[in-house]
Amino acid sequence: MRIDIITVLPELLKSPFEASILKRAIEKGLVEVHFHNLRDYTDNSYNQVDDYQFGGGAGMVMMIEPIDKCISGLKAQRNYDEIIYMTPDGKTLNQKIANSLSLLENIIILCGHYKGVDQRVRDMFITKEISIGDYVLSGGELGAAVLCDTIIRLLPGVLNDETSALTDSFQDGLLAPPVYTRPAEYKGIKVPEVLLSGNFGKIEQWREEKAQERTEKLRPDLLQ
Amino acid sequence: MRIDIITVLPELLKSPFEASILKRAIEKGLVEVHFHNLRDYTDNSYNQVDDYQFGGGAGMVMMIEPIDKCISGLKAQRNYDEIIYMTPDGKTLNQKIANSLSLLENIIILCGHYKGVDQRVRDMFITKEISIGDYVLSGGELGAAVLCDTIIRLLPGVLNDETSALTDSFQDGLLAPPVYTRPAEYKGIKVPEVLLSGNFGKIEQWREEKAQERTEKLRPDLLQ
Repeated sequence: MRIDIITVLPELLKSPFEASILKRAIEKGLVEVHFHNLRDYTDNSYNQVDDYQFGGGAGMVMMIEPIDKCISGLKAQRNYDEIIYMTPDGKTLNQKIANSLSLLENIIILCGHYKGVDQRVRDMFITKEISIGDYVLSGGELGAAVLCDTIIRLLPGVLNDETSALTDSFQDGLLAPPVYTRPAEYKGIKVPEVLLSGNFGKIEQWREEKAQERTEKLRPDLLQ
Repeated sequence: MRIDIITVLPELLKSPFEASILKRAIEKGLVEVHFHNLRDYTDNSYNQVDDYQFGGGAGMVMMIEPIDKCISGLKAQRNYDEIIYMTPDGKTLNQKIANSLSLLENIIILCGHYKGVDQRVRDMFITKEISIGDYVLSGGELGAAVLCDTIIRLLPGVLNDETSALTDSFQDGLLAPPVYTRPAEYKGIKVPEVLLSGNFGKIEQWREEKAQERTEKLRPDLLQ
């Protein structure tokens, strides 16, 4: 898989891709991630990528021209399955969307910043608009990092123990059950006895019950 | 405001706090952010912070002891309004939660990793569990960065133009209207004429209509 990220702040995105699972996936060659600094696609001498919005109002708007140049340059080199724009009014990301994006070969992710991009960028180039949640961020960069993390960890070979992703919350429509590790007793609080019983049938049943219980209590909407 | 982030991967969190708005907010002294590496709170010679889960199954679980040491050490130094655990089965973050957290003085954010933390950590120390969305991440670090970004940008003095945050999506329950900037015509596609009219009453009305229209089309759930 190849991911091209277009941003005005490549330096903000650096560390999440240089640590832990994303770093290993890149090193193993399971995914290629390329950052494109939008300022490299400007003509004007100030490397200006944004301008005041027509009609007045607070906040700058990202101009269409540098974005067009960057996207068109990439599309001339290979086919892209999706050109994604990170925006709070996009479709809310969920595990199902992450699963389906993890099957694609080449994607572009455009990070909005300031007040967002000129609407014509969305009309002319964007094939999918994604929001990571109902809240506003300073820019699309953290959203892009989140999206990449959800996708990349699903690629075959990325997680050490491939069964691990399958027992995560949401993959079976339920929240995950509680987990415990040593010590068996800590400041008087004990681990539930069934988990120490060695009876795997009973343990499985307890986990299913707890997953169901927790989902009913915390996220009844997931059961509908 | 002071934010203490407890993590096994402080290096992953670095760059989002060293760029753009978060960097400026920290430099201006409007917020203090401290990272605590959980490995510094271990007793064992391998700086082990996780262990196999009781009852078997894939994925490691973060142990209670180093987390207890770190949180108890912080609580001995000052009062905390909330001790937040980032977890996919927490309460889903939204703008209202971000608004209310931005009014607090001291918070701790604990990043889960691997299969999550020992359930007793949640029972004994955590006052609020937050998820940034219905998808699974490699760890709580990106979630913590997202949470910090949503909160910090709301602190007075952080955004250059204070009215800017008020016209964001979600703040008035509607998505933001489309925005446009120069040039007025790009490859034959023109900016809506009303925005060039100079008639601010009409522009305001157009924006309200578009915000309503876009919300009805993309996120009818927000109108209920």
